[in-house]
Amino acid sequence: MSTQRERAAHTRRNDPADLMALVRRLYPICRSITGDGVRETFDVLAESIPLQRHEIESGTPVFDWEIPREWNIRDAWIRDEQGRVILQFSDHNLHVVSYSAPVHRVVTREELCRHVFTLPDHPAWIPYRTSYYAESWGFCMAHERLAALPEGRYEVMIDSTLEPGALTLAECIIPGESDEEVLLSTHVCHPSMCNDNLSGVAVLTGLCQWLAGRRNRLSYRAVFVPGTIGALAWLHLRRRGLYQIGAVLVLCGLGDAGAFTYKRSRAGDAEIDRIAAAAVQASECGGDVRAFTPYGYDERQYCAPGIDLPVGRLTRTPYGEYPEYHTSADNLDFVSEAQLQGALALCRRIVEDLESNRRWIATCPYGEPRLGKYELYDNRSGGGPDADQLALLWVLNLADGRHTLVDMAERSTVPMATLAHAAERLHEAGLLRPARTGESLRPLSVE
Amino acid sequence: MSTQRERAAHTRRNDPADLMALVRRLYPICRSITGDGVRETFDVLAESIPLQRHEIESGTPVFDWEIPREWNIRDAWIRDEQGRVILQFSDHNLHVVSYSAPVHRVVTREELCRHVFTLPDHPAWIPYRTSYYAESWGFCMAHERLAALPEGRYEVMIDSTLEPGALTLAECIIPGESDEEVLLSTHVCHPSMCNDNLSGVAVLTGLCQWLAGRRNRLSYRAVFVPGTIGALAWLHLRRRGLYQIGAVLVLCGLGDAGAFTYKRSRAGDAEIDRIAAAAVQASECGGDVRAFTPYGYDERQYCAPGIDLPVGRLTRTPYGEYPEYHTSADNLDFVSEAQLQGALALCRRIVEDLESNRRWIATCPYGEPRLGKYELYDNRSGGGPDADQLALLWVLNLADGRHTLVDMAERSTVPMATLAHAAERLHEAGLLRPARTGESLRPLSVE
Amino acid sequence: MSTQRERAAHTRRNDPADLMALVRRLYPICRSITGDGVRETFDVLAESIPLQRHEIESGTPVFDWEIPREWNIRDAWIRDEQGRVILQFSDHNLHVVSYSAPVHRVVTREELCRHVFTLPDHPAWIPYRTSYYAESWGFCMAHERLAALPEGRYEVMIDSTLEPGALTLAECIIPGESDEEVLLSTHVCHPSMCNDNLSGVAVLTGLCQWLAGRRNRLSYRAVFVPGTIGALAWLHLRRRGLYQIGAVLVLCGLGDAGAFTYKRSRAGDAEIDRIAAAAVQASECGGDVRAFTPYGYDERQYCAPGIDLPVGRLTRTPYGEYPEYHTSADNLDFVSEAQLQGALALCRRIVEDLESNRRWIATCPYGEPRLGKYELYDNRSGGGPDADQLALLWVLNLADGRHTLVDMAERSTVPMATLAHAAERLHEAGLLRPARTGESLRPLSVE
Repeated sequence: MSTQRERAAHTRRNDPADLMALVRRLYPICRSITGDGVRETFDVLAESIPLQRHEIESGTPVFDWEIPREWNIRDAWIRDEQGRVILQFSDHNLHVVSYSAPVHRVVTREELCRHVFTLPDHPAWIPYRTSYYAESWGFCMAHERLAALPEGRYEVMIDSTLEPGALTLAECIIPGESDEEVLLSTHVCHPSMCNDNLSGVAVLTGLCQWLAGRRNRLSYRAVFVPGTIGALAWLHLRRRGLYQIGAVLVLCGLGDAGAFTYKRSRAGDAEIDRIAAAAVQASECGGDVRAFTPYGYDERQYCAPGIDLPVGRLTRTPYGEYPEYHTSADNLDFVSEAQLQGALALCRRIVEDLESNRRWIATCPYGEPRLGKYELYDNRSGGGPDADQLALLWVLNLADGRHTLVDMAERSTVPMATLAHAAERLHEAGLLRPARTGESLRPLSVE
Repeated sequence: MSTQRERAAHTRRNDPADLMALVRRLYPICRSITGDGVRETFDVLAESIPLQRHEIESGTPVFDWEIPREWNIRDAWIRDEQGRVILQFSDHNLHVVSYSAPVHRVVTREELCRHVFTLPDHPAWIPYRTSYYAESWGFCMAHERLAALPEGRYEVMIDSTLEPGALTLAECIIPGESDEEVLLSTHVCHPSMCNDNLSGVAVLTGLCQWLAGRRNRLSYRAVFVPGTIGALAWLHLRRRGLYQIGAVLVLCGLGDAGAFTYKRSRAGDAEIDRIAAAAVQASECGGDVRAFTPYGYDERQYCAPGIDLPVGRLTRTPYGEYPEYHTSADNLDFVSEAQLQGALALCRRIVEDLESNRRWIATCPYGEPRLGKYELYDNRSGGGPDADQLALLWVLNLADGRHTLVDMAERSTVPMATLAHAAERLHEAGLLRPARTGESLRPLSVE
Repeated sequence: MSTQRERAAHTRRNDPADLMALVRRLYPICRSITGDGVRETFDVLAESIPLQRHEIESGTPVFDWEIPREWNIRDAWIRDEQGRVILQFSDHNLHVVSYSAPVHRVVTREELCRHVFTLPDHPAWIPYRTSYYAESWGFCMAHERLAALPEGRYEVMIDSTLEPGALTLAECIIPGESDEEVLLSTHVCHPSMCNDNLSGVAVLTGLCQWLAGRRNRLSYRAVFVPGTIGALAWLHLRRRGLYQIGAVLVLCGLGDAGAFTYKRSRAGDAEIDRIAAAAVQASECGGDVRAFTPYGYDERQYCAPGIDLPVGRLTRTPYGEYPEYHTSADNLDFVSEAQLQGALALCRRIVEDLESNRRWIATCPYGEPRLGKYELYDNRSGGGPDADQLALLWVLNLADGRHTLVDMAERSTVPMATLAHAAERLHEAGLLRPARTGESLRPLSVE
């Protein structure tokens, strides 16, 4: 007895998600680390996926930080002495420095320049600037526009509020057979830029839709958080449950034309590293796997020493390595449906490999079983085994409870998907069973 | 008071074995995984080495398998309508598919073809085929012979038996000072092919003769078993004693013109791997060391997860990598005394290195001993130490109970034989003693 | 109330040491493994650094050795039949084989030749020879001089004594905050050769002067010992205190024109190895890092299995790899102030890195601290972090008590000095504290 809305949602889940449509809808919203823009963004996402929201009050202590005042903005402009509009907030959300205090006054060109940020090397682009923790006001504009302004006096107006309120974050929880969780995280604090961060929001939404339509062995928790302070607030909120998290993947920058880049966790060889690195390297356009550094997106918080989650980061071209990064040129033309879909496909591959990455115990481990009995033997050619037959032999040989499927894949150079299929056939034939936690086979050759 | 026979045997043991003579004697016998061919083979081997035989009855359960019915064959042929003999079993043992059921009937050429295996790419060669676990009948013949057969009717006759009987395997046990065992294994189930498997049978027999004429630190157990089911039957028979086995070497394919190939154990760095890999790499013609794969000869059974013995495999050109493999072209011309003797020499090298691969404890470990006191100091040149002097220093320095001789060889790049000689000199001088199991030196610098 | 002498010594400690002046002063002294030459050498060193001397009597057992009789020499010469002086000890200390027994007799040219060592490939150089443990007498001379001697009789005279006495060694102890010791060792038994061994004596003296003028976290113990027997005697003397030693560096051969060579400890990856190897590789002229071998200077004794100290060796061109080694050509022209000062600077670098190589614990480890609060945040550019900012992030991220500073340096490729500065700033801000022994941070993500 599902309602019409539920049926519609179900349909959407099974359709290939139109990720650019979502990006286009979210693009005009003025987001920051707090404020109504984030709430409006979550309203849109909640049409596709089940979202649980949390509002955390301004002033709440969060580890070494505290939740700042909430920032909202209605309007802003600069006018010249003749009242002509030089800059209008409604033209572009980037025109105002995020978290600008309200201001309304007349200033000289010189004073104006001290409050305006531009990009001389890209004179037509508007930069993205923030001032979360030092109260000030400012504008961002195209350098060519600023350069053309004559001496004189200018009227500046920012109609914003910085008041006690809340920080808003959201979780989408998709329970699986096991309590062990995979954490998926993207930041939602950027206004009107597509690659950073709407591509992450769109791909993670699409991934949640796909996950919700499957039976999963693991549980998944997607978090949509304002960068840094939002990730810290989420960690603080869920600090008692972090031990259940076995893998974390930070997603962003997934819509540009570049190949994939995976940044390893602090440990460097966590399960998520081995699976994501192999998936990136096997992706169509190749891809780059990089060592950990302590700088980056919210993996900085998830991998801090007192948290120490095994967190990797998946992007296409990393931030700072393309000129459009954090400018108005990171617009709707900078990302494409094909690139977003490619990223979603890679995320699904990673999830599938996490799902199949378990330990097995052979039930007939003393020598090989007689595969012919189970209709699993195929050597009609009289020659060596084919790829599927060899995958069966690899899985059987390493089914001692000490090897995960990714261990097997790395040793054998057989793709995980092939090994997962072999393990499934052997499981169905009764020749394998899942290993219990910590269980391993004690061979006869050990007294 | 040795008998004449014992004296003769003793003489044989100390002569260099004539391995080709043994191969020539065994070549005409029709072996399979069961049957009188295996017994006849063991009769021949028993003239050179002490053999303990085991007969395991058909139907006996062996892990996931059971011992099959025993197969024997007296005769077989194909005749044409004129009664002319097209194929005669007595011409070549490979003419009949091993484990063929008895048959005697007249068939069309078309039906005949469904029961005949040939090698179109090698039209003069007879292939080797078996049908152990699916009852059927068949012939193998030169493709050019089959191609020349006109349409018509053919009389086929196979006078074989498939009856309750036994599987026969044999062990040659050479006890040493220690109960720790080295297992040496070769398969004996192939009819009338020299490289696979008579070369293994001959080299292992020669190795047993040589071992029996030495005092050994370790115990050696050579097993001559039908492939797969015989190895499984042996494992089942000795399952309570497997814990005593410290190293396993599977031998076969040792008579062809190729260089050596060593296949590592599942662990990849077992003692047998480190010693055999170094020996192969130092062999005259170089040689190849390969990673483990779960496909192969009987190492497949010895390394199964519930058995997990440290088993390597020594061949020259691996099976399947030479066209003569499993055909009538693997004949007496395909192997040579020189290649067999080279393989035997390499096996002796491996055994000597296993023998000397122990841990030592320095008796004067606090600084270097004054080697001059023991007439072990040689620096008359005033220059640096020569190779023998350096070997003494390496052994003394690593004689802390934590380093085996192969550890020392790998660190120092000094050959194991040189280190073994140095250790012997130091042992004689009283500067070393063998480490007890688990014993290691506790240095003064650890409080 | 310091005496004038103490004040003078203090001044010297803070001046840049004039290492060549020290070499020039020590060069004429005839040292051996025992005797007054060593005592005279220590008299000179004691003018610059606090020295504690130990006299160990002849006959004292020292592990597998015993202290030999003391050797002193007053004069020696060879004269021809006309009484003309062929060789005079006072011309060069190398003219007499060290530890030569006294002799005074007339010999034929043939007998003379059996007691004379020369270097035919370097006919103008005098070799260096010793005969510590086999009583004999001998001379060393230029080959061209010997070759020119006519047949005839020669009067040989060595006025030496080999009598019960003592072996002399010296320690310079510079206590630090911790009892953990760094052992610095050089040998002092070579007469009139500058690179081997006066360069080591001079650099170690300079290093002690510098250490004595600093506050140190670690304690330092410099030992000046006759080679082999002196090192053994010192080990025997201090055998109860060896457990306090965390790193050992053997110094010698530091004045020649070559680049640095560091020889690793037996373990190969000890703290001293990682720090010294990095320092050598970062040195101006590059430098070579070599694997351990059991041959060498006194590291042979310090790394013997029952001692097993983590001992590395720093030289420029290693002994035996330059023709002047152990000859009269290793003279005052063979070494230079610049090379000695370069070696001293490298030693200081190694000491500074040992001093800063500790483990830290973050005090705000749950996510990153808000660096802006501590005036440690610098991202005015809006771009990525600069080198100093990145160093702060690396130290914070790895401040879990499991990573030493050298671990951080190796992972980050940030120089240790930069990380040490970052750690100091974070420590001052209260964001780090030193880890107690064995302490490490337990992250929230571990239940």
